[in-house]
Amino acid sequence: MSNQLTIIGCGSAKPTKSLSPSAQVLEMRDKQFMIDCGEGTQITMQRIGVRQNRLNNIFISHLHGDHCFGLIGLLSTWGMLGRTRDVCIHAQPDLEKLLSPLLSYFCPDLPYNVRFNNINTKRSEVIYEDRTVKVSTLPLKHRVPCCGFLFEEKPREPHIIREMIEMYNIPLSDVPRIKSGGDYVCIDGRVIPHEELTRPAAAPYRYAYCSDTAYNERLLELIEGVDLLYHEATYSDEYEKSAKLYLHSTARQAATIAKKAHVKKLMLGHFSARVNDLGVLLGEAKEVFENTVIAEEKMVYKL
Amino acid sequence: MSNQLTIIGCGSAKPTKSLSPSAQVLEMRDKQFMIDCGEGTQITMQRIGVRQNRLNNIFISHLHGDHCFGLIGLLSTWGMLGRTRDVCIHAQPDLEKLLSPLLSYFCPDLPYNVRFNNINTKRSEVIYEDRTVKVSTLPLKHRVPCCGFLFEEKPREPHIIREMIEMYNIPLSDVPRIKSGGDYVCIDGRVIPHEELTRPAAAPYRYAYCSDTAYNERLLELIEGVDLLYHEATYSDEYEKSAKLYLHSTARQAATIAKKAHVKKLMLGHFSARVNDLGVLLGEAKEVFENTVIAEEKMVYKL
Repeated sequence: MSNQLTIIGCGSAKPTKSLSPSAQVLEMRDKQFMIDCGEGTQITMQRIGVRQNRLNNIFISHLHGDHCFGLIGLLSTWGMLGRTRDVCIHAQPDLEKLLSPLLSYFCPDLPYNVRFNNINTKRSEVIYEDRTVKVSTLPLKHRVPCCGFLFEEKPREPHIIREMIEMYNIPLSDVPRIKSGGDYVCIDGRVIPHEELTRPAAAPYRYAYCSDTAYNERLLELIEGVDLLYHEATYSDEYEKSAKLYLHSTARQAATIAKKAHVKKLMLGHFSARVNDLGVLLGEAKEVFENTVIAEEKMVYKL
Repeated sequence: MSNQLTIIGCGSAKPTKSLSPSAQVLEMRDKQFMIDCGEGTQITMQRIGVRQNRLNNIFISHLHGDHCFGLIGLLSTWGMLGRTRDVCIHAQPDLEKLLSPLLSYFCPDLPYNVRFNNINTKRSEVIYEDRTVKVSTLPLKHRVPCCGFLFEEKPREPHIIREMIEMYNIPLSDVPRIKSGGDYVCIDGRVIPHEELTRPAAAPYRYAYCSDTAYNERLLELIEGVDLLYHEATYSDEYEKSAKLYLHSTARQAATIAKKAHVKKLMLGHFSARVNDLGVLLGEAKEVFENTVIAEEKMVYKL
């Protein structure tokens, strides 16, 4: 399974004819991570055929309904489907208080555990880590406590060059040691350096999700140089005052963050129902940062 | 606005590629009534352009998630849209306890009131009544307290026959009295009977919504002769045991109820994700009751 990002919904609070509330599924290193879970998430996932067999962690950026109203339906359906693996929801503590009574009432016999990892949105810290992936919070500026998430692959081991194995008659049992950085010593005492025996692996991928937030330069050092930045772009320039009032960003502000943080690619999302033509957002962002795309619902982006 | 029924969702608990959880909007006598509100109801309504300006009453049949998880999103969006008219939710008392903390947390400044009409699902009683429409509960047999709803138009006044007005020179001020059943006395003393001056109005329309329920003959007298019966048909004959186990109905059982209650038309709904071909359900029902149709999502049925 290659790294990919499926956009379930990229609208903002009021759903429109074509935009659903926020939700994504990131697949990274053979695992799936859900990011936000607006109403209808399970339905859209079902419609576009997102398999959920490796989805054990859900990250909720903040407790506005368009980012979490889909949770109860999803968790309930998983119960009916006989899921047995635990799921961990990473969110602010209030979510546990709000969701637990619903789970008790609507899903009293859930065959799996819902664990809550109560996160602090005020500082950047690692909230999830396994052998190959690390997730940290990104404090955002919004009307309620809110954070984005930085998903980082851990470095992969370098690739052994098959021809070298043959040339130096290297036993397979030595390969793991070489991959971890060791040299190889031949029977005649010659030392073949690690670098000669291996090709470096692809650089670890880094994906930053930042929704919802006002323009916020404190983000810059946290997301410096990421491969992909999903940044909210609720409004076009025309509604800059609304962005300020509601602590959202314009597409141009998102692009400015992307540029200043030297990210490789920017994806705009979280579009207001008031913006009729997303092309306007794209145009305004591209004036600042060329490598920008518009998120599209039900699309799978290879990373 | 003519009477019509919009099917928002007619699936059962697990959403499928083509079926969403239960929700309908009934338009009767210039009012809109929502019946159940599964996840995604507001999104589908938005997509198919259901106007909601006369929607002030929501009827929830029972507290399984596929019949009520869409409420919080809908109520929240109405708040953002600046709704000011009260809405009344007719449901079992538990709903108020479950929904109130969510409303307080997610919609603290709602510009309208959400009122709860706590209903008793065990007996049939009138739970809503206005000048032109009456709604009663229909006790159903399910795993949790559950009721259907009978929507009945009140009789319309007869139509005055324009030619008669002219023939007898009847003053317009006498028309309301004649419409309400009075005769007309001419200047020369002749009495023109009411029946000669009027054409009867169309018979009052009656719509019965019955989801979810096991086969239940106690329904028969309550829905006798209704114009349209929406009855759950979760399963085909093949899954009759599941129907019994989970207190649902097969299509054939729904048709048997329709036949025995002498309803005019039957609409099947609440289809299980396990039934791949809805044509099988229709076929099995039609063997018992010919005037049967399959509910289709996003369809508007003129009544």
